[in-house]
Amino acid sequence: MEISARNQIRGRVVGVRTGEIMGEVEVEIEAATITAAITASSVQRLGLKNGDQVTVIIKSTEVLIGK
Amino acid sequence: MEISARNQIRGRVVGVRTGEIMGEVEVEIEAATITAAITASSVQRLGLKNGDQVTVIIKSTEVLIGK
Amino acid sequence: MEISARNQIRGRVVGVRTGEIMGEVEVEIEAATITAAITASSVQRLGLKNGDQVTVIIKSTEVLIGK
Amino acid sequence: MEISARNQIRGRVVGVRTGEIMGEVEVEIEAATITAAITASSVQRLGLKNGDQVTVIIKSTEVLIGK
Amino acid sequence: MEISARNQIRGRVVGVRTGEIMGEVEVEIEAATITAAITASSVQRLGLKNGDQVTVIIKSTEVLIGK
Amino acid sequence: MEISARNQIRGRVVGVRTGEIMGEVEVEIEAATITAAITASSVQRLGLKNGDQVTVIIKSTEVLIGK
Repeated sequence: MEISARNQIRGRVVGVRTGEIMGEVEVEIEAATITAAITASSVQRLGLKNGDQVTVIIKSTEVLIGK
Repeated sequence: MEISARNQIRGRVVGVRTGEIMGEVEVEIEAATITAAITASSVQRLGLKNGDQVTVIIKSTEVLIGK
Repeated sequence: MEISARNQIRGRVVGVRTGEIMGEVEVEIEAATITAAITASSVQRLGLKNGDQVTVIIKSTEVLIGK
Repeated sequence: MEISARNQIRGRVVGVRTGEIMGEVEVEIEAATITAAITASSVQRLGLKNGDQVTVIIKSTEVLIGK
Repeated sequence: MEISARNQIRGRVVGVRTGEIMGEVEVEIEAATITAAITASSVQRLGLKNGDQVTVIIKSTEVLIGK
Repeated sequence: MEISARNQIRGRVVGVRTGEIMGEVEVEIEAATITAAITASSVQRLGLKNGDQVTVIIKSTEVLIGK
């Protein structure tokens, strides 16, 4: 499946934490570490753990620019 | 001003296009090119043009993970 | 690729319109027609046209409830 | 009050869970079950419980398309 | 209909502009003028024009804090 | 740093609560109290506490209009 989101960057999971409802996944890409706040159940459904190769997906309408 | 958004990555503007209401800004970071869809008036207000050093800002709740 | 977004619904494209920067895609699912505002370039990149089988993807943090 | 969000679908609550800050509400529509991650205090303010008739509201700029 | 979004502020429309796909609505609240980028068809469906009393609705997960 | 987000309103923090992953910050502006759901680690990183002068930042594509 190809996805409409303009920003799709390959990276490696370097941190996973889950609370009751939400979880936090850190993904190392070349330039930076991206943090994703997704539901704890999605963390579990995808079985996310350190070292996983994943794709960070960000819709362009969600991106701000600071200058 | 420090901003709550977890993801703030420095990059360089490599493309700017504006329509009537919306605009599109491409920012080259090390790992990839990030596209931001922001209003045309924000493109103008920040005076965004190729070569500008900018910061890409993404709230962690807006990030999806694909695996 | 499996995606963290909790809401992924199969449907059929029933309308595509593009402006300069943004485009609008209508997808018929069983219960309703979902409208997606995505960039015109994503409409083009995916080659979206009426009759396409697609998946509507919505992150759960983007959903509001009215009662 | 009529709302600008293009996607407003009637459904029935089939699951409610709350954590400290966030909560999760599952709403059955005809085609699928939609999950909404909203604050725990909104779950409480609306008194959301299984069987409630609710409206799922999604702004079109938040919808991705996979093909 | 009561809505889960935590932030709902009454205001008055002071500007409406539409492009092909997207539109821009400015709403004066007491403290500031809020700009909403919504689809042009929602501008039309709600019949938004200067002087309209409207409610600005913002989900709390979409708000950033700068300090 | 100037930010592309159209809506930036000065206010004062009047409430801070944190859970495991997410936190909730209430900011009093003139017209209303705005609630922001941000990660607990951002609450900590910015050291948010009652009485802080902060800026509420909202991208215009995230704003809905009710009429």
